[in-house]
Formats: sequence, structure tokens, C-alpha cells
Amino acid sequence: MIDQLPQGFRFAATYAGIRKKKNDDLALMISDRPAAAAGVFTQNQVRAAPVEVSAKHLAKTGGVARAIICNAGNANCATPTMNAVARETCRATAKTLSVKTSEILVCSTGVIGEPLDGSLIAGELETLAEIAEPGGFEAAAKAIMTTDTAHKVATAEVRTAEGTIRIAGMTKGAGMIQPNMATMLGFLFTDADLGPKPLTKMLRSAVDGSFNSISVDSDTSTNDTVFLLANGASQVRPTGIAREAFEKALAKVCEDLAVQIVRDGEGAKKLLRIYVDGAASDRDAKKLAREIANSPLVKTALAGADPNWGRILPAAGKAGVPFDPSKVDIYVNGFRVCMRGTRADFNEDEVQKTMEEPESVVRFHLRGKGRGQARFFTCDLTEEYIRINAEYRT
Amino acid sequence: MIDQLPQGFRFAATYAGIRKKKNDDLALMISDRPAAAAGVFTQNQVRAAPVEVSAKHLAKTGGVARAIICNAGNANCATPTMNAVARETCRATAKTLSVKTSEILVCSTGVIGEPLDGSLIAGELETLAEIAEPGGFEAAAKAIMTTDTAHKVATAEVRTAEGTIRIAGMTKGAGMIQPNMATMLGFLFTDADLGPKPLTKMLRSAVDGSFNSISVDSDTSTNDTVFLLANGASQVRPTGIAREAFEKALAKVCEDLAVQIVRDGEGAKKLLRIYVDGAASDRDAKKLAREIANSPLVKTALAGADPNWGRILPAAGKAGVPFDPSKVDIYVNGFRVCMRGTRADFNEDEVQKTMEEPESVVRFHLRGKGRGQARFFTCDLTEEYIRINAEYRT
Repeated sequence: MIDQLPQGFRFAATYAGIRKKKNDDLALMISDRPAAAAGVFTQNQVRAAPVEVSAKHLAKTGGVARAIICNAGNANCATPTMNAVARETCRATAKTLSVKTSEILVCSTGVIGEPLDGSLIAGELETLAEIAEPGGFEAAAKAIMTTDTAHKVATAEVRTAEGTIRIAGMTKGAGMIQPNMATMLGFLFTDADLGPKPLTKMLRSAVDGSFNSISVDSDTSTNDTVFLLANGASQVRPTGIAREAFEKALAKVCEDLAVQIVRDGEGAKKLLRIYVDGAASDRDAKKLAREIANSPLVKTALAGADPNWGRILPAAGKAGVPFDPSKVDIYVNGFRVCMRGTRADFNEDEVQKTMEEPESVVRFHLRGKGRGQARFFTCDLTEEYIRINAEYRT
Repeated sequence: MIDQLPQGFRFAATYAGIRKKKNDDLALMISDRPAAAAGVFTQNQVRAAPVEVSAKHLAKTGGVARAIICNAGNANCATPTMNAVARETCRATAKTLSVKTSEILVCSTGVIGEPLDGSLIAGELETLAEIAEPGGFEAAAKAIMTTDTAHKVATAEVRTAEGTIRIAGMTKGAGMIQPNMATMLGFLFTDADLGPKPLTKMLRSAVDGSFNSISVDSDTSTNDTVFLLANGASQVRPTGIAREAFEKALAKVCEDLAVQIVRDGEGAKKLLRIYVDGAASDRDAKKLAREIANSPLVKTALAGADPNWGRILPAAGKAGVPFDPSKVDIYVNGFRVCMRGTRADFNEDEVQKTMEEPESVVRFHLRGKGRGQARFFTCDLTEEYIRINAEYRT
């Protein structure tokens, strides 16, 4: 049970018949007052219509939103009707809530290339608006799931001298699959009183260290979207250390959600946290961490509980970041397995045993003066991933 | 049987006890006269000692070589002794053949991070030099194998007005694995009379369109090396159209070998040829083709015989190459499955059936004025790949 929800938001979910399986597939998330809004979108060249329409709306309002309408089961992407459907969905939602069309944000996730029937959404809007309530948060988090095996939520509370601010977030994603293309979506709500500009900056920073620092299979979706809505209902405008505390809490919520995605990665049984330090810059460190995270050989080694630094070192070596291998130390679960680019003295059985746990940690340490560091989360690559993704669509 | 070997080369192989399994693990390849030599090496930041030493030798001689000494079973990489062992191997080989140390090229492939016992190699050099003969080509090709399930050779003949030139090549590689790290090695021999400079240019171009246009698992080895030796024994110095014919034949041999690697990819059951055309440049086209080739979702779709263009389009979309999705047509085995970025009219069962064959072709066509094109080869991603790579080292 979630008991720390921000004030002034209401949520509702229902089954609109978009996906075959009769689980809720449509969620409406309403801010009772105009909320400052920030969005981060997929960097894929191929962007689904909801991404285009939502980005346009945020630009038009300068960052104000009243509601998010999100469906699962169909990505509304790569079809001739996609733009019309996304626009019409916003229009209908705005009409139902008596707000401007540009104040509606829209998201879709699911199969790509098959037309989404917008009337299925439109037909449920009245009901959704009627049943929406603060307690509908988890129902909404469930309705946006595709191949996820569990719904994913996180909350935080920030106490300031002026009062308490709350943050609540939900996310979905487990890989990028067809038929059930598991786009990454994240919706964050806070009752802090913040404008669109600082909000956008905070969201970008939080996403960079969380949703942009995870990998399941290195494939990027056409629909990836994270929204942050701040409606000011707490009447607290965080400044100074309160603002810092807020940013920290936001980052924490995002990281928590991002880790939930990796844990739920398709076929994944284990989580791997990768820490890189001593690089020339944070950017370089992140490149190294990402390359280690995306290496199929590192991910299969994790599946096999193999402390195989001989895969980690070359994976980093192809990141396009210059480094001297003889200055690299690698630690697995606290054990140094590679020292100065060659095998360290360690007990293989002992390290292997620790890698059978649900979580492992790799530290890639560059000896030197660099202060760049990064963190990346990934999961193991298992036969189950292949089974899930090689099965022919039916 | 190979009957078109270039003149003036001799080959020998033996079991030197470097790998546990008693298959030949050491090959010596000799040019009877000084040969012009060109090399292309891994771009990984982590380079094994043989790569460093061979590159240094080529620089020192300005591109002259008398022999290649290659062992399998140990990569001679990431150990404190690696440089000494690679250098000593060259010195001993040079002494045996009475040539300069800098005229020896050295390669190693196999386990990383474990010391290679150079005396195992040194102890076999006399015998190898003695038994080396032109017909030893295939035995050498077998001795350099690691996880390969078959040895890989290709030959070509170029008839010119001045006489016949021959090219013979061997390669190994099936993924990059530990314990048997399957580095990609390629050795090419020709009796054409060409200097190191044009040879290097020709090799780079041929490698670009072959060994650098394939992917099994997107992991790059620390030892990847391709050598081309031209000893002039045919006394034919190709110019004009004969030179063009030679370059074509060289490219063909490299492509043939590269495709053999992909076919033998770890756990692979199917080959996928990816063609991209209509891009702004060849470089852009190659980026798009590589991204499609490396997508786990495309590779698992191939395993499942799923003509899933909804995975191909977003895979291309994350290549960092701008394009308009509404100008993309995608063909699978000749069937148009995506037209102008949306689903084309095709019979799914029919296309699926063609994807059960051992070879499939994806064409990614950008409508427009761009003339950039590229080709890339990859294989399917199967549960067998995971089994091979997730097994704990024993």
C-alpha cells in the first residue's frame, strides 16, 4: 500500500479492449489544478505519434499539463493513422475534463505497426474521469504494464520548514518486445510548487542517473517517455537545502523505479550494478559502464556466476574511451579479480558463490587522476530472454 | 581440397600442448622469399601482446615479413609476461628460419589472463620448419581454430596477360568466448608482386567490406588481426584492369571467409544478410546496417522466423543517423513488409516460411536522393549462444 501520495492528483484505470488479455489497459492521471510539466523522450529517430504530440503540447503550453492519458497493448506507432489517433485522444480527454487539448499528455505502449482504435479510448473517458481518485495510483501503474511481471511504483517524502512535499512515481518496461513492445514509460507526480523550467532541469538530471543508466537488451523503443508533473498543492516552494533535498528524493525515486525495470528484465534472474571510477570525465565513465552493461558476454557470464574479468576488460576496451589497461583494477562483489590489467589473486569458487545471489556489483577502477565516475544497472542474459523474444507472434 | 594455392608459401601445424584438447594448436606459415606484408588490428583499447609486437614489426620493416607464427588455446593477453613471450616467440622463430626477428608476425588466440608458456612454442619450431610444405595450408587453418566447429578457407585465381596470380586465405572465429576466447584471425597469402603500400590499402578496403562488416555478438576481441602477405612468386605485378581484378578477388576471398565466420557463430543456425541503400553516405548506411545486425530483438526474431519489421525500424532508429521513417521501405527475403514506415501488404505465413531457410536477406531502403549503401552479415541469437557462454569455466 502506498500512503505517501502527493496531494491533488487522481488516478483511474479500466479495461478498454485494446489488448486481448482482459487486464486494465487504459489509465487516466489527473492533476486537479494546472501542473508544471516536464518531459523526456526517446532519442530514437523513429518516434511514435504520442511522443510527437506530447512534445508539441509541452512546447505549446510552455510546460503546463492537466492530465496524462496512457494506453497499453498498442504503441500507436508506424501506422498511417497514428497522428490522428493521438491528437483525437488528447482532444477527447481535454473535452471530458474541460481543459485545453494542449494540456493533455498522451502515451502508448504495446504492439507496433498495427492501427490503434481511438474510439476504444474515447469510449472510456467519461467513466475514467468519474472514478478517478487519489487511491487509484496503483491501479493506474498496473494498467500501463505490458510484459512486466509486476507493477512498479516508488514514493518519497521531503520535509521542509514550510511543510511536506511528496513525490510518487510509476514505471513500466522489461525489454523492448514485439508483440508486447515493452516501451519504458515513467510518470512522476509531486505536489511541490515548482515551475516548468527548474522542473525540466531536475527531471533531466534524475533521468540521466536512472532511466538512462539501465539496459536490458540495448534496444531502444520508439515510445520511451518520462513525465514529471508538479501541481503545487503542498503550497511548498522548495529553495536552498529544501530544493536539494527534493532533487535528491526525485533522483532516488527514479533510481528505485529504474532498478525495478532491470530486475524485471525479460528472462532476467539477476541484477548487476556497475560502478566506474577514475575516468577522465563522468561522460567517459558512463560510456565505459554502458559498454560493460551491454556486453552479451558479460551478461551471460553473470547468468553463469562466472567472475570473468577477461570479458569485462575487453568490453570496456571497445567503448571508444582511451585508457591504459595496465591501470585497471576490477572488483566483483568486493573481491579484486583483476589488478593492473592482469589476473589478481582471488579464490574463484568464493567469488562465484557470491555471484549466485540475486544482485552483483562490478567495480571498474581506473588508477590515476581522473575523477569521472558513473553507475549503470543491467541484468543477466538468459535462455528465457531468447525464448520470450524468438517465439513467433501468434 | 585446395588446389589453387599461391606459390612460394609453406605451412605446418602441430600440437604443442597449449590447449588441453589434443588438437593441433600451433601453426607456422612461411614465405620462401621476403613478402610485402600488411596488417589490420583490433580497435579495442585492450590489445594483446602479439598485436603490439606484430604492429611494431610491420612498422620497423616498412611492411616485410617472412613468416607468421600463430598459436591457439591461449590469447597471451592481460598477463605480466605477455610481452616477453610474444617477443621471445618471434626471436626463436626468426632464429629457426634464419631471418630477422622483425620479419616475424605473431598471433595468439584463446583464453585471456592466463600466462602462455613460450617454451611450448619454441620447442616445436624446428619440427614445424622442417615439415612445412605448400599442402600444409588446411592443417594450419585447423590449428588456429578455437570454438569454431569447422575450419575456414577460401581461394581465388586472377588471370592476367602476364600470368596467373593466386590468393588463399584462412580465418577463425565464432564469437568472443572465454574460456576459448574466439578472436577473429585472418591470414591471406598471394603470390602477386605488390609493395607494402598498395597492399595495405587493398587489405584495408577488403577488410572493411568483410571482417569489419560482420557481427556475432557485438563483442570485440583483444587479439583480432588480419594479415596479407604478397611474395611476388608469380612474377606478376598487376596493374590497370588486372589490378582491379586482383582487388575484386581479394575482396571476394575476404567476404567468403567473413560469411563463414558468421555461419559458424556461436549457437547460430541462420545467416542474415543486411543491405542498406539510399543513405546520405556509405558511412551512414553502414551505421544503420550494423545497428540492425546487433539488435538482440532482430536476431531473436530471425531465430523465430518472424518477419518483424517493427523491430528492424527502431533498431535502425537508434543508430544516430537522421532519417525520416516515412521514407523507409523494408524487404525481407524479397517481400516488402514495411512501406513508407508503416506495415506493407504481405502474407505473414509466406514470409515466415522463407525465414526458416538457413539464409535470409533484409533490405532497408531509404527513399530519396542518397546513394550511400552498405552490407552487413549477422546470425540469429539462439538459446545455444547462452548455453555456450553462460557455462561456468571448468
